Amino acid sequence: MNFIAMNRFKVSVEGADDFEDMWRSRESRLKEVPGFKEFRLLKGSEEEGIRTYSSHVIWDSKADFENWTQSEHFRDAHKKVGKSKGRSAIMGPPKFEGFETILQED
Amino acid sequence: MNFIAMNRFKVSVEGADDFEDMWRSRESRLKEVPGFKEFRLLKGSEEEGIRTYSSHVIWDSKADFENWTQSEHFRDAHKKVGKSKGRSAIMGPPKFEGFETILQED
Repeated sequence: MNFIAMNRFKVSVEGADDFEDMWRSRESRLKEVPGFKEFRLLKGSEEEGIRTYSSHVIWDSKADFENWTQSEHFRDAHKKVGKSKGRSAIMGPPKFEGFETILQED
Repeated sequence: MNFIAMNRFKVSVEGADDFEDMWRSRESRLKEVPGFKEFRLLKGSEEEGIRTYSSHVIWDSKADFENWTQSEHFRDAHKKVGKSKGRSAIMGPPKFEGFETILQED
């Protein structure tokens, strides 16, 4: 079943708008990537001036995700993020977690 | 945009099958609940004998989620879980987090 790749970001409340703008204005080419199903940027709770965000990308399989991380497409997408204002609002490195869907209802 | 309610479970590796069986065999009536969109049970990584799982439920809105938590349907669903073998494999209380979708591509 599907694989979900999540990255969790801690963002300063002052920089949250810049962080969101960075995502909104990025040129996403995920739809061109084999096995891509869905992307979401999620806004979580705020605690002591730090907001949690999480990006969720659903792939047909873990292999599709891994192929993407080794592609030129992936390198291009991440190169551009390097110097933006939104990038500097992120506190520390994002935390990656991978999950397999084992049960689904919709 | 959509609201995602997540619960994170730490499960002993020995009890992981019972935990998964508990979810697989439960009578879910989520589809009857207004605003319900999607349920997933996700299996994460294992570390030192403890496996992370996460349940994700997507609702049309946070209000739909909150209405459900106050319904008889919710109380019934959680009453049954109380004494199962799968329940006793969970280490400590589940950790709840709510997220709003602020960007989506599919």
